[in-house]
Parts: sequence; structure tokens; C-alpha cells
Amino acid sequence: MDLYSYYRSTSSYRVRIALALKRLAYHALPVNLVAHGGEHLAPAYRALNPQGRVPTLRTDTGELLMQSPAIIEYLDECYPNPPLLPAEPLERARVRSVAALIGCDIHPLHNVAVLKRLRGLGVDEGDVTAWIGHWISEGFNAVEQMIGDHGFCFDTPGLADVYLVPQLYAARRFAVDLAAYPRILRVEGAALEHPAFQTAHPANQPDTPA
Amino acid sequence: MDLYSYYRSTSSYRVRIALALKRLAYHALPVNLVAHGGEHLAPAYRALNPQGRVPTLRTDTGELLMQSPAIIEYLDECYPNPPLLPAEPLERARVRSVAALIGCDIHPLHNVAVLKRLRGLGVDEGDVTAWIGHWISEGFNAVEQMIGDHGFCFDTPGLADVYLVPQLYAARRFAVDLAAYPRILRVEGAALEHPAFQTAHPANQPDTPA
Repeated sequence: MDLYSYYRSTSSYRVRIALALKRLAYHALPVNLVAHGGEHLAPAYRALNPQGRVPTLRTDTGELLMQSPAIIEYLDECYPNPPLLPAEPLERARVRSVAALIGCDIHPLHNVAVLKRLRGLGVDEGDVTAWIGHWISEGFNAVEQMIGDHGFCFDTPGLADVYLVPQLYAARRFAVDLAAYPRILRVEGAALEHPAFQTAHPANQPDTPA
Repeated sequence: MDLYSYYRSTSSYRVRIALALKRLAYHALPVNLVAHGGEHLAPAYRALNPQGRVPTLRTDTGELLMQSPAIIEYLDECYPNPPLLPAEPLERARVRSVAALIGCDIHPLHNVAVLKRLRGLGVDEGDVTAWIGHWISEGFNAVEQMIGDHGFCFDTPGLADVYLVPQLYAARRFAVDLAAYPRILRVEGAALEHPAFQTAHPANQPDTPA
């Protein structure tokens, strides 16, 4: 498989964790979101991904898939061991609700395109920082109540962690105060010690700046 | 089942379509997002849904589920006929990628909370309208290339339509020009004639204003 990704893109990081948890080998194809006006916006990349965003996965049979939620469910269906979701529908829904809250109501509000547009409206840097912090904090307030008391979000690493750990990386990057979230911080600690999460970390990618 | 919803909430509308396509009976419990400072923000509702957002589904066994992507996958797993997703993983990924693009990269940028916050930053109404139009148009540009040439998004009604039809309703509400999207408009036409989409429409809910 090939993965078009950017080292510190939240959604690329999610897919890298899923691949690493399943011990799937892939070829990383970096797409620089900041150089040359954004390689993701160039026609060559848009021919692969009509939205012009990372990540894009090319499967072993050459099919192109976009949107991290769809890619991750695909990987879990095609490579079920270890599973990213529990077996029982109600438990699956609880895990997916954490993933969806982060994937819909936190991350989209501070991605590269949205922050650029906010600045284009004349919003100053202080308000941009407050905007990012507001959505992360409001989302984490709910996530803190939705996850469990041991290990990863729900004991063993799974879909909720695939979303939460990259969101934590973004929260650190934007200097959001996390002291109110002991369960979330526990997950961050568990991920720091787990080989798959280490492999997938933005610090350890082929396009990570020196 | 009970569904806490608001008649014109995009994510409530999605779940209503899924329930109607599967011919599942439920008890509608309206949550007014605009009256009394927002009933979704009141402690009584937050006790059911820690995020304070609609929809919330109470299952037949009394379990509370939140986040429309998780609720819809749950319904599809528990009530598989008719299915909202194809059987084959690659085809499932293509359908889910349309749903995820709408659910992550369009709708979250114009929900009630986000527009309120934008206005709070002093962004004027003209720029708020342009902001909404930008994200819908940019997303629809990609969706138009991702869906098929017949019937609903992928022939028979399914998960992609569960997301696209409510997003179309929002696009109309915000007066977004849709002329560039003939495939998307074809799906809108198909939904207008389909009983499940009619039942789920914001015009036909118990809390729809007279």
C-alpha cells in the first residue's frame, strides 16, 4: 500500500496509527501542505484526491481511497487483526462516538484550510488561538466523560485512540491547557509507551523536518 | 427507540433518514436549539448527552448513543435490512468517504455553535454567508466527482445519501448556488420522491413550526 501523508497532519497521523497497530507495511509518499503553495492543491495530487487533502491510501490493488474515517474502517474490515472496534454493536457505537466527536467537532475546526480562512477574514492571532482552544476544550470536556478509567480510551488500543492521540498532539502544538482531563492524559501516557503509536508519531516520519 | 432531535438539525435529519429507510418506529423527543437559550445546553439534556448536542438515540434497551455517524453505523449493524452500505469493503469505503467528507469537512463548519462563535468574533453577516457558501461549495465540488451517474449517490439509497440530502437542505437554506452540481441535484430530485426521505424531512417533524 501507498499512503500520501504529511507528517503533522492529524488525519494522516490517524491512518498511520491504524496501519501500525495492524502491523501493515506501506510506502509513505509525503505531500507537503506548506511548501510551494501546498502540494495537496496541485493538479497532480487533486487527480488522486478530488478534495485536495491528505491522506490518500492506494490499496494493494491500486485503488485510491480518501477521507481518514473511511480509510480506517476499510483497513479494519480488510485486516481485522487486531480489531480497532469491539465485536458488540453497542460497544462499537460507544467507541465510534468518541472517534466521531473528535473527527467532526474538534479537528475540522482547526485544520490548515479553516485557520487560513479565519485569518483571511481579519481575525487576529489571539482570537485564532482562542478559537482553536475553545473547540479542543469543549470537545475534550465531553470525551473525558465518554472514555474509561484504564489503559487506552477503552482499555486496549482501538479506534477512539486512533483519533484521540493525534488530537492530543494538535492540542499540545496549540498549547491548550489539558489539566482538566486526567483520563485523556492517561491515554496520552499509554500511547507514548506503545510501539505502534511511536512509529506513527509526527516526529518519526520520512518528511519530518530535521 | 427514542430520538432526541431538532427538526432542522442536519445530524438529526441524517438519523431520521436512516430510521425511515429501515422502517424503524421511534418516539421523537424534540430539543429546541434556539428557545430558552438552547434546550440542548440545559443540564437535563447534558445528563443524557455530555456534548450537549442533538441527536441522541435511546435504544430499545435504554442505552443512550450520541454522534450521528456512530448512531447510523449502529442502526445498520443492528437492523441490517435494507443495508445502508454495500457488502464489499472497497465499495463500503467509497460510500463512507462521501459521508465522511460531508460529516467532517462541510457540516461542522456551519453548525449553530460555529456560526455563533464566528459572529462573536465580529465577523459580519456577509462574511458569515460567504464562509458557509465556501465550505459547502468546496465540499460539493469533490462530492460531485465521487458519486455515480444514476439514481441516488450510488444507485440505491444508502449512507452517502443519508449525509448528502440533509446537507442539500442546509445548502438551500443558506441559498448556495448548486448549478455546478448536476449529479448532486439528481440525488436531491430522487430524495424528494422517496417516502423515507419525505418522512424524515424537516418540514414533517412534530417540532416543525406551523
